[in-house]
Amino acid sequence: MKVGIINVTGYAGMELARILRRHPEVEIASATGRSLAGRRLGEVFPHLSECDIEITSDITESVDFVFSALPHAASAERLEPFIAQGVKTVDVSADFRLKDLDEYTYWYKIDHPCPQFMETAVYGLPELHRDEIAQTRLVGNPGCYPSAAVLALAPAVQAGIIEPDIVVDAKSGVSGAGRGGSVALNFSEVNENFKAYNLDGHRHHPEIVQELDAIGQSDGLRLTFLTHLAPMTRGILVSCYAPLKPGALPSGEAGKDSVREIYQSRYADEPFANVVPLPPQTKHTSGNNDCAIHATIDLRADRLIAIACLDNLVKGAAGAAVQNMNVMCGFDETAGLDQLALYP
Amino acid sequence: MKVGIINVTGYAGMELARILRRHPEVEIASATGRSLAGRRLGEVFPHLSECDIEITSDITESVDFVFSALPHAASAERLEPFIAQGVKTVDVSADFRLKDLDEYTYWYKIDHPCPQFMETAVYGLPELHRDEIAQTRLVGNPGCYPSAAVLALAPAVQAGIIEPDIVVDAKSGVSGAGRGGSVALNFSEVNENFKAYNLDGHRHHPEIVQELDAIGQSDGLRLTFLTHLAPMTRGILVSCYAPLKPGALPSGEAGKDSVREIYQSRYADEPFANVVPLPPQTKHTSGNNDCAIHATIDLRADRLIAIACLDNLVKGAAGAAVQNMNVMCGFDETAGLDQLALYP
Amino acid sequence: MKVGIINVTGYAGMELARILRRHPEVEIASATGRSLAGRRLGEVFPHLSECDIEITSDITESVDFVFSALPHAASAERLEPFIAQGVKTVDVSADFRLKDLDEYTYWYKIDHPCPQFMETAVYGLPELHRDEIAQTRLVGNPGCYPSAAVLALAPAVQAGIIEPDIVVDAKSGVSGAGRGGSVALNFSEVNENFKAYNLDGHRHHPEIVQELDAIGQSDGLRLTFLTHLAPMTRGILVSCYAPLKPGALPSGEAGKDSVREIYQSRYADEPFANVVPLPPQTKHTSGNNDCAIHATIDLRADRLIAIACLDNLVKGAAGAAVQNMNVMCGFDETAGLDQLALYP
Amino acid sequence: MKVGIINVTGYAGMELARILRRHPEVEIASATGRSLAGRRLGEVFPHLSECDIEITSDITESVDFVFSALPHAASAERLEPFIAQGVKTVDVSADFRLKDLDEYTYWYKIDHPCPQFMETAVYGLPELHRDEIAQTRLVGNPGCYPSAAVLALAPAVQAGIIEPDIVVDAKSGVSGAGRGGSVALNFSEVNENFKAYNLDGHRHHPEIVQELDAIGQSDGLRLTFLTHLAPMTRGILVSCYAPLKPGALPSGEAGKDSVREIYQSRYADEPFANVVPLPPQTKHTSGNNDCAIHATIDLRADRLIAIACLDNLVKGAAGAAVQNMNVMCGFDETAGLDQLALYP
Repeated sequence: MKVGIINVTGYAGMELARILRRHPEVEIASATGRSLAGRRLGEVFPHLSECDIEITSDITESVDFVFSALPHAASAERLEPFIAQGVKTVDVSADFRLKDLDEYTYWYKIDHPCPQFMETAVYGLPELHRDEIAQTRLVGNPGCYPSAAVLALAPAVQAGIIEPDIVVDAKSGVSGAGRGGSVALNFSEVNENFKAYNLDGHRHHPEIVQELDAIGQSDGLRLTFLTHLAPMTRGILVSCYAPLKPGALPSGEAGKDSVREIYQSRYADEPFANVVPLPPQTKHTSGNNDCAIHATIDLRADRLIAIACLDNLVKGAAGAAVQNMNVMCGFDETAGLDQLALYP
Repeated sequence: MKVGIINVTGYAGMELARILRRHPEVEIASATGRSLAGRRLGEVFPHLSECDIEITSDITESVDFVFSALPHAASAERLEPFIAQGVKTVDVSADFRLKDLDEYTYWYKIDHPCPQFMETAVYGLPELHRDEIAQTRLVGNPGCYPSAAVLALAPAVQAGIIEPDIVVDAKSGVSGAGRGGSVALNFSEVNENFKAYNLDGHRHHPEIVQELDAIGQSDGLRLTFLTHLAPMTRGILVSCYAPLKPGALPSGEAGKDSVREIYQSRYADEPFANVVPLPPQTKHTSGNNDCAIHATIDLRADRLIAIACLDNLVKGAAGAAVQNMNVMCGFDETAGLDQLALYP
Repeated sequence: MKVGIINVTGYAGMELARILRRHPEVEIASATGRSLAGRRLGEVFPHLSECDIEITSDITESVDFVFSALPHAASAERLEPFIAQGVKTVDVSADFRLKDLDEYTYWYKIDHPCPQFMETAVYGLPELHRDEIAQTRLVGNPGCYPSAAVLALAPAVQAGIIEPDIVVDAKSGVSGAGRGGSVALNFSEVNENFKAYNLDGHRHHPEIVQELDAIGQSDGLRLTFLTHLAPMTRGILVSCYAPLKPGALPSGEAGKDSVREIYQSRYADEPFANVVPLPPQTKHTSGNNDCAIHATIDLRADRLIAIACLDNLVKGAAGAAVQNMNVMCGFDETAGLDQLALYP
Repeated sequence: MKVGIINVTGYAGMELARILRRHPEVEIASATGRSLAGRRLGEVFPHLSECDIEITSDITESVDFVFSALPHAASAERLEPFIAQGVKTVDVSADFRLKDLDEYTYWYKIDHPCPQFMETAVYGLPELHRDEIAQTRLVGNPGCYPSAAVLALAPAVQAGIIEPDIVVDAKSGVSGAGRGGSVALNFSEVNENFKAYNLDGHRHHPEIVQELDAIGQSDGLRLTFLTHLAPMTRGILVSCYAPLKPGALPSGEAGKDSVREIYQSRYADEPFANVVPLPPQTKHTSGNNDCAIHATIDLRADRLIAIACLDNLVKGAAGAAVQNMNVMCGFDETAGLDQLALYP
């Protein structure tokens, strides 16, 4: 199958190229990148040296599948003709994640470039929407933070064991901010430093609410979602907190066991959502498509603690996009995604 | 004034030496360290090369003030004779922080080596206990996490604007784990990695409860305190969350202003508790004794967000110990502590 | 083919497991590790969670191929019975690298545990010894530093364009020091730090001399080899300097072109020795088996500058070991080694 | 004394403010920074929060001393009126380092903005030019690399024990590249990465040659100077190699002793050039004005190895500038520079 990558020159795009290059079912037929158009992909990015194709301004080949790794708005605009022609697409940007156009406008502060496709788009978390993904031509790939937060919380929300009053304290590596050049991303500013940012709200907030509200038993999730920048390149870890619903679980250690069973059973058949016995570490998922999840109870406060981590560029972006492609195209869901994490 | 440092060879001890070396009122007269006894301090630690004293097994000189940077239990044991003789002491370990002996026994799983002094000891957070510190001979220096968490939350608790239902999500650099050699602290294991630890409870938990309960209007704080390890050497950042008490604050942006004023007014005269207008970054306190604090409201969830950061080895350990000494001895509280943060 | 890994619990052993797990021709049948014997491999190392075998004290299965990732001396001892039985083996330790027993004794300060096999062992750098490797049953896998240094210098030495008077300034990430627990490897000691070490000589010195002397036109290489520790987990970069032989190359830019051609032509058919047009970066080889090499001339000083970098745990250890196995067993030399570098 | 800082908003300028703020003899009267003009210094840089002055476009106060931390060319231009008026100045840029105008033009590829002052300027390395610095009104502050390289090599060159054939392999932290925003400085590109750069020559090359030729016994130093970027914020370490002059030193260990004595005796009275018994580590100088130096012999190759490290923003920039000011103004040379290194 011939695939095209729009904007191969950002981190998500590069990572798509890295993963697709080893995918048994596809060939990268075309890859775009405005500022580097005309140069060879493998020359610009030495780790892709064997990808001997030219970066172009537009998708030049006829392709069967398109990934867009452009920023929002630009992404939907460039994808529109492909969607209209019926080419299957995964949009890694935020353009097709939200169901509610007003929410999109509120958070992204622009008019959506092609709202006509918002309804047909499917939110690309196979762990929640596998069947719909298998039948759609347009997937909105989840944000990196929501991928972790929703997977961390979905079992508890679905099982109805927590109050709809959640704190998600999220920590991300720097690559989540993209391959840009700004003082704030300068190594000297970030290294040996830790900070919270976006205290008035992060654009990934409505995704988490949308997905958890859809599976929960009550509307109107009261969510505090605070993001932090950690001095590392890859990795997201979310620590989620919510009061237990009184009486929903046995008390004491038995409650912990019960939580563990709820989580294990929920994800028993999932190839990339792994419930792990010990608190996970971001480096355990470095370079692979796993989301590692651990849930327990703070018995002193009767509060659920659910932790999830993943590689923001893989399960949080390019890997999830390939997983979605696999589901959309009927390939083995794990095709191209079998790399073990690089540790240490 | 002649001071002695017990266990100068750990990070807190080394940091005490670094700070005291530039203190205008004191001289380091004696410094102990079992494994390195017999060697020159400046030879073992090149950054202290001008400290030309011998590391000994015991405090050898007659001293007017003693710091202990030993681990708990060992610390109280070694301090006991000094306390008994009426020498002023600051214990950097956990031995004299808790008022409740049962709590100590529960969390540290040992019998307290000299419980007779627990009651007379003062919890060494001058921002809460300045007057008592000025009059005691024995200070239990706060843990690094509680220093940040209590300073982040005290104004809100005292003002009665939050429910006693708090989540403290804490992130620490690696030096908090000490100058040990273990696989878990090996650079290769920690770098590019982020993890939560001690999900069943951290020993600093009861300190936070003790201090906040003492100033709050209700007993029985429901606290979830979760600690994380970040890939950096120095720095602690705590993100604290609590539901606002209904009606306690004006709604909307005015509520945020109100929170800001409560915090600014609470710490207006504090030299080392700085309420900052933007979310603080750990590196802004690297090497100095500041605790930078920022509080706001998540208007979507009616929840207080209070963030504090500090250098775990300075305001979280050695700097606070020197601040306590200054208060105990009637020196200028900032003496020896005027170093600006090293940034970047 | 059934393979066994002796000492799977160090970094080289773990990395062997990671690579072999995806090797199309082999199955990990047995893996040893004294301190963790009895536990499941995937339980101890979460990134290997799908490796569902038990760690044992000794190789328990009948295997067709054995890797040893033990430290020197212990390695030869444990390999001896396998070698004697004719099982093919790659020793990742230093025991079978040196041809000269006296050199071994001098540098490692012990008697060699089974000197009878030293002569039959082949130095496992396929780029220099492919044919011998294909015919031997025992390969001594090169040290991480020599892999880089020899590949960086071999073309110049073979072409006779430099004087036998070489400086190799080598920089390594911390994982080269192994999965140990010592204060010197503590994150807090290594991060934001850079140092030289082993100024009186590093054990990898004689390997470099042995290999370069064997291909050079003069004996008695005058080599200065200085190692440094860089604050990163993976990666080695060597910067090599040698005076040009007068008249051996055209002057000026033409000389640079000539050097480039010598290098490109030397490694034209090599899958893992890549001559790159720009100075290489360690992260361009992170997690893969490439050695990236760049050579040029300092025209001001008529000196060759040759730079090489590689991932010390892959091409510098486990990847090279698998490459050697592939050659020894007649597999495709790149089998199991096709992973692209993880960047960024 | 009232001092002005031109371009306080780069790393060298910020560091000048940090150091001068604690200098007992001076007051920062004015500080410029084009892009941030109009804002308070302490507001823009929280670690300087107590510096309550406004950043302006030009030096607004009448000042007795001016530091410029602008880039070259712009620096000389802005300093010219002050120099002309006889105000004492230290230029942290490269404009007044080189004696030879042609060398300046060759390396910086521009015409010098005020060549009339080049001759009167003194190269600001007090360890070599203390008396001239004490008598000049214009100091060209050394580059960060040359500070380390010249201090590492000067004793050997002056003593005539090495051939004029030197390799300087230099490693720098990222802050040396300044407080800029570019993809190449993005944390994700630099972290876990090591690379050489400027293989065709670095602008600090002619400074090293100028200073060593001036004290050596032969002209025409054959210098290879190669720079590398290490994944850390602060710190430079140079490893210098040169063949010993035959017969200049006793052979064997006695030669090493002799080298040590030459170095120790050369720097015996220097407050900031410290000959250390063990190979130095960059973190031992983090935040202070020391240059730590260690010299020995590679007995296998009869080659001098001299290693020096320093904090590139302190002894490599702002600290050296203050040291120069102290010498120029007759203050204690160590005034304001007594901070101990921050370790770990």
